[in-house]
Amino acid sequence: MGDTMSEVERREAIRVGIVGYGNLGRGAELALHDAPDMRIVGIFTRREPEVLSRARRDDPAVADLADETAIYPLDSIRDFESEIDLLLLCGGSRSDLPEQGPALARYFNTVDSFDIHSRIPEYHAAVDAAARAGDNLSIVSVGWDPGLFSLNRLYAEAVLSRGKTYTFWGKGLSQGHSEAVRRVPGVKAGVQYTIPSAEVLERVRAGERPELGTRERHRRECYVVLDQGADAAEVERAIRTMPDYFEGYETEVHFITEEELSAEHSAMPHGGNVIRGGETGLTNNAVIEFSLRLESNPEFTASVLVAYGRAAFRLYERGERGARTVLDIPPALLSPRSPAELMRELL
Amino acid sequence: MGDTMSEVERREAIRVGIVGYGNLGRGAELALHDAPDMRIVGIFTRREPEVLSRARRDDPAVADLADETAIYPLDSIRDFESEIDLLLLCGGSRSDLPEQGPALARYFNTVDSFDIHSRIPEYHAAVDAAARAGDNLSIVSVGWDPGLFSLNRLYAEAVLSRGKTYTFWGKGLSQGHSEAVRRVPGVKAGVQYTIPSAEVLERVRAGERPELGTRERHRRECYVVLDQGADAAEVERAIRTMPDYFEGYETEVHFITEEELSAEHSAMPHGGNVIRGGETGLTNNAVIEFSLRLESNPEFTASVLVAYGRAAFRLYERGERGARTVLDIPPALLSPRSPAELMRELL
Repeated sequence: MGDTMSEVERREAIRVGIVGYGNLGRGAELALHDAPDMRIVGIFTRREPEVLSRARRDDPAVADLADETAIYPLDSIRDFESEIDLLLLCGGSRSDLPEQGPALARYFNTVDSFDIHSRIPEYHAAVDAAARAGDNLSIVSVGWDPGLFSLNRLYAEAVLSRGKTYTFWGKGLSQGHSEAVRRVPGVKAGVQYTIPSAEVLERVRAGERPELGTRERHRRECYVVLDQGADAAEVERAIRTMPDYFEGYETEVHFITEEELSAEHSAMPHGGNVIRGGETGLTNNAVIEFSLRLESNPEFTASVLVAYGRAAFRLYERGERGARTVLDIPPALLSPRSPAELMRELL
Repeated sequence: MGDTMSEVERREAIRVGIVGYGNLGRGAELALHDAPDMRIVGIFTRREPEVLSRARRDDPAVADLADETAIYPLDSIRDFESEIDLLLLCGGSRSDLPEQGPALARYFNTVDSFDIHSRIPEYHAAVDAAARAGDNLSIVSVGWDPGLFSLNRLYAEAVLSRGKTYTFWGKGLSQGHSEAVRRVPGVKAGVQYTIPSAEVLERVRAGERPELGTRERHRRECYVVLDQGADAAEVERAIRTMPDYFEGYETEVHFITEEELSAEHSAMPHGGNVIRGGETGLTNNAVIEFSLRLESNPEFTASVLVAYGRAAFRLYERGERGARTVLDIPPALLSPRSPAELMRELL
């Protein structure tokens, strides 16, 4: 293991393409600038490159990089096969990745953040087949959930075999629930925060292992701007009773102005906790907890993608092929530091 | 990867020997009884097997197992080469493991909890050479620190490249510091608790990144039983000024009776926190935290050993040889569950 890694370290920087430039792609660009061993070849987009360039010059976080990072049409990506070691797929899980993941894994090593839990096995199988056919390596479903939270559920369960694992999400802005709120007739704009129950969190932390579902562990807060003339009571009722998304949850709906929405609710914070309580020996309690508090969910997710991008390329260089998940990846491969340094300084 | 693992799962239980039967070996025996895919071949000890058997019958946690688990003299262990897949080395890091680790890795797959951080590289090299010579696989320095804490330092740093990582230990009983207290003239018995500074912990959690050393992040509490006629003030001074162990720390010394010591201070709780604060993008804060709260430090450490024992044997079956650390091990190998199940239920 050690030998292969030091060869990887001696070679040139890993050459990376970013596919898709929403919040996640933008976060990937920023995170790659902090990676000493990786280099951006370009951003590949379905948008008009000139339009995206202009938008980037108006964005304070990336204005400095606007002339530095090349932008290419996504449909030219096959021309870059010999210039790219790895693609970070930054499209959405609903419509982009099911198509792009397998299509691009055929020609490139890839990492993506496919996050529809129930469809991961099927997505993994499709990417695996494409990557094997193309002699490439892919890591799917990277981020924090699925991703770092999954790792912690696994480590905690493997170590503490008698016990119960709880995942709490938030406080954070949920994209899916915000979109659901915005689809309600009479809603002009709005956001939704998922908030874990502080009381349940404390009970679980203290070693209790209550039987409580997701609905009993979380509440939901919506901030909504109404269309002119819309009926607030009717909108609130429609939100609170929406099946799957809000029904059965404690839900608060606040009506605010468009100005308040943009001033106070345009950040994308998120986070959460994975907690496992269990027993060792006869009766000794043990509690394992992992938590994240993130001011920018997409930037953090992109940082996880970049670290797993490094691991993907190293596995490829070792000769591994096909699709993997975070559960398969030796942790040391995520770090730009040498195995000897990691052993000395982090172990 | 997936293919190899399901073969491992179809085979017979992993046959395990426990070397050394202090608190850690006893914890390993208990943890192995919760592992559906592992089976204890026996305990190997330098003690007289009959004496150990008797002691086990008087210990409520293992009395039920006293007749179930075979006990053999350690010097007969070579006779079991063909009956054992894996040894869990449960001796101490100071005098047992430096000798036993390399000696036994020559003939068996091994997992140990060698925890003297500064000497890990040299220990790893010795075990690596022995394991390669004997065509075996070993995982060294497994537990929670080094171990799960190391993993979390690595994951957090790899993902959040701009930031600062803090490790807090405690509240917990420190074996090394308790022994140091007991070596002070005039001390009959005693224990030492390491306690993190609640104030510093809160600051780091809130995203501050103060420049504070170990001494400023922890305080120490000693509970001491004096020898008859000993000078309390002198004992307290000797403890507080002991170089390396106490000098520079905020230290409290409490004098108690032997009865109080055995009633209130014979458990072995421990735990701690690994926290990394950093930034994504330009200025967005992110805080990653991992924590453990353990009523029994040795039982939990033994549970980690058992999970990595499973991984060690699986790596051996894949054909890997030599020494590894937790930083090298694919997480999925720790779990008795199949890759498909892990993807479906934990990812």
